[in-house]
Amino acid sequence: MCQLLGMNCNTPTDVTFSFAGFAQRGGRTDHHADGWGIAFFEGAGVRQFVDVEPACDSGLAKFVRGYPIQSRNVISHIRKATVGEVRLENCHPFVRELWGRYWVFAHNGDLKDYAPHLHGHFHPVGSTDSEQAFCWLMQELAKSHASLPPVDELTRTLRELVPRVARHGTFNFLLSNGEALWAHASTKLCYIVRQHPFASAQLADEDLAIDFAQHTTPQDRVAVVATTPLTRNETWTTFAPGELRVFVDGAPLAG
Amino acid sequence: MCQLLGMNCNTPTDVTFSFAGFAQRGGRTDHHADGWGIAFFEGAGVRQFVDVEPACDSGLAKFVRGYPIQSRNVISHIRKATVGEVRLENCHPFVRELWGRYWVFAHNGDLKDYAPHLHGHFHPVGSTDSEQAFCWLMQELAKSHASLPPVDELTRTLRELVPRVARHGTFNFLLSNGEALWAHASTKLCYIVRQHPFASAQLADEDLAIDFAQHTTPQDRVAVVATTPLTRNETWTTFAPGELRVFVDGAPLAG
Repeated sequence: MCQLLGMNCNTPTDVTFSFAGFAQRGGRTDHHADGWGIAFFEGAGVRQFVDVEPACDSGLAKFVRGYPIQSRNVISHIRKATVGEVRLENCHPFVRELWGRYWVFAHNGDLKDYAPHLHGHFHPVGSTDSEQAFCWLMQELAKSHASLPPVDELTRTLRELVPRVARHGTFNFLLSNGEALWAHASTKLCYIVRQHPFASAQLADEDLAIDFAQHTTPQDRVAVVATTPLTRNETWTTFAPGELRVFVDGAPLAG
Repeated sequence: MCQLLGMNCNTPTDVTFSFAGFAQRGGRTDHHADGWGIAFFEGAGVRQFVDVEPACDSGLAKFVRGYPIQSRNVISHIRKATVGEVRLENCHPFVRELWGRYWVFAHNGDLKDYAPHLHGHFHPVGSTDSEQAFCWLMQELAKSHASLPPVDELTRTLRELVPRVARHGTFNFLLSNGEALWAHASTKLCYIVRQHPFASAQLADEDLAIDFAQHTTPQDRVAVVATTPLTRNETWTTFAPGELRVFVDGAPLAG
């Protein structure tokens, strides 16, 4: 199974601590050695880094770990190839533009007998079921709204669309347009909100701890979503099967 | 004026030599210190690196210079902001998907009073005239062909479309879908084809020389397109004003 990591914050935040532990899962502490990727929003722009090397060995991953990118929305993925070869175009996260915004998507799970009718303007470049599902979601969002709607309207539309994909298999995913982070769990996803008073955290996958109080202001709030808890000494909230949550400004919205 | 660099090859080739000289133009040997970007095709996938730091100082540019990415199609750009702020979303090259292929575009020049009717599915994320022109080209290509046509058909369509943009100002651009590299000059663009027997080349912008014979096989062929010649001791061919050329497998196609 692949691994997902998402971050949504109320102020641009450095993701390197979470990414340091997460990247160990790409071939070292877990078996997901078939490429990885990370995408950061920076304003309306996106930086996307993808690689077919295992994340724990990749020169690019080492560079990202040391590069203090400040972002309010981050999605990362470590891939265990199940459908589609180990090729760059099959590495998540995927990026598309809709309504003059970039959309970033990463998926964990397998969709069986999944061949959506892609009659619109979004077509997969690679050969994964995941990119097909992303293109279908983009197509259906484009049909449902003439221009970018508010976050709660997008969430309502996604609540209608997502079950139509999820019935084909396991559909744990992260989706962001730079404003909000949507997270859906079929089987495995959890999250934590870090806010004042900040404590220290101990990475589960690497011998590394951080005292967030030294790196934050009392106003900062950060939500982190991951396949399994990234830290040992914090309490993560598990998603219920079929649950779709949306995070804005570092906190889950009600509903 | 911004600077463009394109490479099209018949075999995956390392762009680091040309990029080393080119990156010096981002703030050191020339005044284009408002960000830079580079995109490489790798199979059907694309790596895009963009940065708002000057290319000569950027940590990311340093990383790219040392990272031996092997690609058959590369587009790079150093930006002198004229329209649109210095923000990540305004850095070229821009990437969009059409017909299940990624398309990469970078532009040098200014378009005056340019407000194309974007009624299709491609909308700019940033505020540059360049991204507007790219979205319009993608929209019109999508209207002209139901699916990916052969390169020569795409070239015919582009020959009809490009003058409709170019009449608004200076429209030097590079465009690639990973199969071909299209290059159009309003004012300033030149190219060179390197093939057997390979000689050595001396960078114009940095004290660096390379003997291509040591890094190539007799079958290799590489076309490099740039705003101005990147080397001192080679003969570059200048584009005529209004000329659109397409490069496939490291050579310009006739016509």
